[in-house]
Amino acid sequence: MLIAIVTISDRASRGQYEDVSGPAIETWLREVIVTPFEIVRQIVPDGVVPVRDVLLALCDEQHADLILTTGGTGPAPRDQTPEAMREVVTSELPGFGEQLRRASLEQTPTAILSRQMAGTRGTSLIINLPGKPVSIRFSLDAVFAAVPYCLDLIGAGRIETDPARVKTFRPASS
Amino acid sequence: MLIAIVTISDRASRGQYEDVSGPAIETWLREVIVTPFEIVRQIVPDGVVPVRDVLLALCDEQHADLILTTGGTGPAPRDQTPEAMREVVTSELPGFGEQLRRASLEQTPTAILSRQMAGTRGTSLIINLPGKPVSIRFSLDAVFAAVPYCLDLIGAGRIETDPARVKTFRPASS
Amino acid sequence: MLIAIVTISDRASRGQYEDVSGPAIETWLREVIVTPFEIVRQIVPDGVVPVRDVLLALCDEQHADLILTTGGTGPAPRDQTPEAMREVVTSELPGFGEQLRRASLEQTPTAILSRQMAGTRGTSLIINLPGKPVSIRFSLDAVFAAVPYCLDLIGAGRIETDPARVKTFRPASS
Repeated sequence: MLIAIVTISDRASRGQYEDVSGPAIETWLREVIVTPFEIVRQIVPDGVVPVRDVLLALCDEQHADLILTTGGTGPAPRDQTPEAMREVVTSELPGFGEQLRRASLEQTPTAILSRQMAGTRGTSLIINLPGKPVSIRFSLDAVFAAVPYCLDLIGAGRIETDPARVKTFRPASS
Repeated sequence: MLIAIVTISDRASRGQYEDVSGPAIETWLREVIVTPFEIVRQIVPDGVVPVRDVLLALCDEQHADLILTTGGTGPAPRDQTPEAMREVVTSELPGFGEQLRRASLEQTPTAILSRQMAGTRGTSLIINLPGKPVSIRFSLDAVFAAVPYCLDLIGAGRIETDPARVKTFRPASS
Repeated sequence: MLIAIVTISDRASRGQYEDVSGPAIETWLREVIVTPFEIVRQIVPDGVVPVRDVLLALCDEQHADLILTTGGTGPAPRDQTPEAMREVVTSELPGFGEQLRRASLEQTPTAILSRQMAGTRGTSLIINLPGKPVSIRFSLDAVFAAVPYCLDLIGAGRIETDPARVKTFRPASS
């Protein structure tokens, strides 16, 4: 089970800003997932090409099971993560973006400005998380119960979560 | 008023699995719609081409007013109903997928994995329902109040529902 | 700060119907925004080409900061505002449509039929509002708290709102 964390930020990629979002995702995953997994972390600048290329390499060469991105999903001109996503995913999962925005809206009215999305490419699931560290835990809490079953369905590795933190749901097969 | 029910399932189309979802939709419709209508039912395998072709024939040759599909909307590689829908509908109605996922989320956290959508082609309205029979009634209950007015707006036939089951809503014309 | 209000209606553009939606938007804006702004209003017929062309001119020639449209977002054949929007916006903001439909669903079950969307082009933010005047105030109330910050992020002009009416939210910079 390989999980990739991709921090998308011009400033962090130039070292002008310490990446705190990537580590926040890693900490959350290590608290919640109880089965073995490895993590790779990358930091890339904003923009369609760098984000697309790192996602393609993670899917097609490294065969990451789960890829979590942070950053680049707002309405500003340099926020181009969704445009990169559209060049990478072969199947979009609109329910993730809807749920992430709805959950976040309970905290802040500007949640509707987020363009977060999710989708799959081969046996990789890619989910965009917000850029701000304070929103990351909240976002992972809001959607992660559905992630293990999604990984099962696309033929990725199997994970189990600490039920005290996230109650993984796997429907009985039809 | 012609209503088509399309079951999308590799196993059901090969006879390896009894189609219970199609009949569940038919039963619901016969309980709820009080004006006359005919039903046609079809079973097709998963995949963009068979789903697209049956939907095109139902819209362009049989002039079905309402087409309800079941199956093929998950994240698994064989789930390609949304990709077929995108080749068929000329006007997408994103509110159906949003409402179907939101209503279903009250029952199961994996509802966010559904890629259900709806849209129109000519005078036909096409709505994707979930594959699991247990979710079908719940889904129809969640959206059907808006269906008769949508059919009016696109020039399809007129239906009335049993108000004890579904309160059809038709706004006063502006 | 230039705000454009675009009424999209075959009947209103031919003078067969008094445009009450455009004035309803203007009244709301004058009540809520407390910083200086100018308003331009236009009335165009339904259809991809007239809507696209007026939006392009407002963005690229008049450099409107905020463009609010009313009409043409339903499922009827002449409702083509979303198709025009897709030719104009370079960055879609799906959270607006989701929130507008969800808020409206509390009032009417046919809210799921709306295809309203929002997006940006350069330093212009474009938001589709419903056609019916009665729904316009309700819709503006549902999303406007996020609008000033969105204008900041895309490099448009700055606005402040009367906090008794709309509590503008600007997160602390990260």
